[in-house]
Amino acid sequence: MSDDVQELGITESKSHNTGEWYAEVVRKAGLADYGPEGMSGFIVTRPRAYAIWERLQGFLDAKFKNTGVQNAYFPLFIPESYLEREKDIVEGFDPEVAWVTEAGNEELEERLAVRPTSESIITPYISQWVRSHRDLPLRVNQWCSVVRWEATETKPFFRTKEFLWQEGHTAHATHEDAWTETLTRLDQYESVYEDLLAIPVLKGQKPDYDTFPGAETTTTVEALMPDGKSVQAGTSHHLGQSFAAAFDITFADEDENERLAHTTSWGLSWRAIGALIMTHSDEQGLVLPPGVAPTQAVIVPIWQEDTKDAVLEYAEGVAADLDDAGVRVELDDRDERNPGFKFNEHELNGIPLRVEIGPNEVDDGELTLVHRPDGESTVVDREGVAASVAAHLDELYAKLYAAAEETLDGEVREADGRDEILGTLGQHGGYVKAPWCGDEACEAPIKEPMAAEIVMVPFEDDDPLVDADGDDAAGDAGSHGETCAICGEPAQRTAYFAKSY
Amino acid sequence: MSDDVQELGITESKSHNTGEWYAEVVRKAGLADYGPEGMSGFIVTRPRAYAIWERLQGFLDAKFKNTGVQNAYFPLFIPESYLEREKDIVEGFDPEVAWVTEAGNEELEERLAVRPTSESIITPYISQWVRSHRDLPLRVNQWCSVVRWEATETKPFFRTKEFLWQEGHTAHATHEDAWTETLTRLDQYESVYEDLLAIPVLKGQKPDYDTFPGAETTTTVEALMPDGKSVQAGTSHHLGQSFAAAFDITFADEDENERLAHTTSWGLSWRAIGALIMTHSDEQGLVLPPGVAPTQAVIVPIWQEDTKDAVLEYAEGVAADLDDAGVRVELDDRDERNPGFKFNEHELNGIPLRVEIGPNEVDDGELTLVHRPDGESTVVDREGVAASVAAHLDELYAKLYAAAEETLDGEVREADGRDEILGTLGQHGGYVKAPWCGDEACEAPIKEPMAAEIVMVPFEDDDPLVDADGDDAAGDAGSHGETCAICGEPAQRTAYFAKSY
Repeated sequence: MSDDVQELGITESKSHNTGEWYAEVVRKAGLADYGPEGMSGFIVTRPRAYAIWERLQGFLDAKFKNTGVQNAYFPLFIPESYLEREKDIVEGFDPEVAWVTEAGNEELEERLAVRPTSESIITPYISQWVRSHRDLPLRVNQWCSVVRWEATETKPFFRTKEFLWQEGHTAHATHEDAWTETLTRLDQYESVYEDLLAIPVLKGQKPDYDTFPGAETTTTVEALMPDGKSVQAGTSHHLGQSFAAAFDITFADEDENERLAHTTSWGLSWRAIGALIMTHSDEQGLVLPPGVAPTQAVIVPIWQEDTKDAVLEYAEGVAADLDDAGVRVELDDRDERNPGFKFNEHELNGIPLRVEIGPNEVDDGELTLVHRPDGESTVVDREGVAASVAAHLDELYAKLYAAAEETLDGEVREADGRDEILGTLGQHGGYVKAPWCGDEACEAPIKEPMAAEIVMVPFEDDDPLVDADGDDAAGDAGSHGETCAICGEPAQRTAYFAKSY
Repeated sequence: MSDDVQELGITESKSHNTGEWYAEVVRKAGLADYGPEGMSGFIVTRPRAYAIWERLQGFLDAKFKNTGVQNAYFPLFIPESYLEREKDIVEGFDPEVAWVTEAGNEELEERLAVRPTSESIITPYISQWVRSHRDLPLRVNQWCSVVRWEATETKPFFRTKEFLWQEGHTAHATHEDAWTETLTRLDQYESVYEDLLAIPVLKGQKPDYDTFPGAETTTTVEALMPDGKSVQAGTSHHLGQSFAAAFDITFADEDENERLAHTTSWGLSWRAIGALIMTHSDEQGLVLPPGVAPTQAVIVPIWQEDTKDAVLEYAEGVAADLDDAGVRVELDDRDERNPGFKFNEHELNGIPLRVEIGPNEVDDGELTLVHRPDGESTVVDREGVAASVAAHLDELYAKLYAAAEETLDGEVREADGRDEILGTLGQHGGYVKAPWCGDEACEAPIKEPMAAEIVMVPFEDDDPLVDADGDDAAGDAGSHGETCAICGEPAQRTAYFAKSY
């Protein structure tokens, strides 16, 4: 809402200083401000970014509800003893949490963690709610904020001490049902990225040794950022029976035998907003696909004193038609700004489609549509404007998706052998795929020198990765027919190496 | 989700043990559970209650957005120095907060409050965002949870240490604009209660000495609960220029003169869910108006072995028709439960309309509709079922509203003189209205003996309570023509005395 003209320009280069460019877009497009002094790592989410989050929420939440998920809300705080219980059963769980130790002018008897994730408080309630096989599947989700006190540098939406997300928690009668659930949610995350945000993702699982603590398998969608790094864009965990055993989620089956449930959890955070900004935006500012854009089309009337009334009247009619058709449209009829200023401002703010209306358009019964991403300009008839705009919005989405897909396709390379993998990653970034034996020891020679790791192992043959005994198929022997790029032993899977956020 | 039949019955009496009855409805209708051990004062909001909250959110949020409000999200924590700043300028502000003192395995240099309300963190950002009169009005709202460490007994949705709410914060160029804003939000709160929740409310302002700390005027909608107490159901504050002065919200006016803004804040919490449960529910359990009911109509097919297929097929057709028409409908075709059990369960859970379909209905091309609140039963034609159900849902709303309005009308009594006010409140509860001089000293003789207070002073003549000089009209002299019921001096306003939550 600043008035300063120079504030409109992006000065950093996306390709050369991706990080600085990103920070500049976030600030100048009014997406987020940094938190107050004394609260580094926190951000203020401004209306433009929050409106994107609301659209993402609406899209995903509708999918959840159509597939049996109910929303609920659990307390913000988790007693230390509950987290300890999780620690005891789940090796490696040691989140850096913020602790409430004083409240109402007294010291608390037990410290309360501000939730870093809610398994340890939700699972005991699921345990109370499940008695019979008829209570399964049980699925709850909450949209909330969580706090993780990581000391790394703040990057709005990518790395913040507090972030918004949804966390789903489910219980099922069988291992297979829990698998179906895990993959259903992963597919929904894929759809958020691909269908809504116009970002193609790679779908697969994390290596066995890199799962969420306590999970049997962690599945992931990974998105490639313009700096050549992969971002874990959404995760869905098959938790097996570890949480069910620890928190006693048992149920009477149809024969009244007591059985132990199988659980899942899955989450997607506002990191999706970060990936969105990173992927499509440019050196004019924010670029948004129409599905998440708070404003989809802005009408900029262009007048001289003698044509003002006619142009404005015509523009108002167009705005009304678009609004009636459900297009999120704004008419920028500000007197105090000239069209050039308005163009820059709306480009900075990522409005997908600009509608220009001047005296010529009025005389000819036309309008000029300009695509934000590439400036492509088309003259269309005033008649049928709503259909034209809808078609152009679809085209815009397709354009953004195609560009991102082309980038991704070009950034997946093959390599064989440690040196080639390191060389390729070093030169290009992006993903390097290579046959892999499944052993953590064969990731180390890549991870140690250049902090790249196996970010994803694709599913093969739509195999849900799972044996009859519940083991992960990445541990199966000899199905791949190739040899591990590092050790030369038989390969089990294809591994995607990349640097990651 | 319990299987135990005895769990279905409400055993407490609404009229005799309102508190216990309320707690039983909350638990047995699956609305909320108490928080974990060590976290008294917290609740787990179960899907049925959360779905009510979502509908309320949707209703109110749409009104906000139609009237210029944008949602945003500010950090969960507020540095102690920010709260202190508010304390310094705002006499009486001393919320009982929860403090984060340790995070990431280190002690923090400055304590962070878990937000009890966000004026002190939002206002400094508004100050940064406002430069010119063109940036005004500026309106942001957030839906979030807040924490207030009150030691009183927990009552789900009414009194909990953490609660969900929305808080709106706005800045305006003039005192009058801020007034319009204050009353716009108050009217929207009134509409939530009256149009959505079927609860009539009384609208007015708090006495001058009982405003939100720092506010010039606090306006309120008050709802009467069945135990005869008033609940402050939503509040909207005109903050005058106190926050703007403290946090330096200035703007350049049209002549480039620097001026100080006028601000408001307004909030509505999940207490609305508490008021909803309290008002309409009965000794069969929860009663909900159709607008907020997660399920509006449940179809219960009634069959013998030989009629099962025909009844079910017919019921499925009805369910499909209602679903197509946008009715939130469930078909309860469980084999393992008999119709009587189902009736009880759906009554407990507050489904507004039951649709009974047996062999007779199938033969006659009819259905039986039963209203949850009073058991009124009507046979309607299968043909046109969607329109019939819609009409009955409207009728149900009207029935609930009329009953609540009749109760409220009967519970507003007049009295003159201290003893009559005390006697009337003691005998009946509810509201006692009396002419009042506007002086706090005249509330004390009621407040001290029986903890009843002036909960509301109605607006008069639609007067927005404000003088040209910005003073509150409750302080005006001599406009009322009556004498104060306590001191006998000229009355300024009518005061509503009541016990309150």
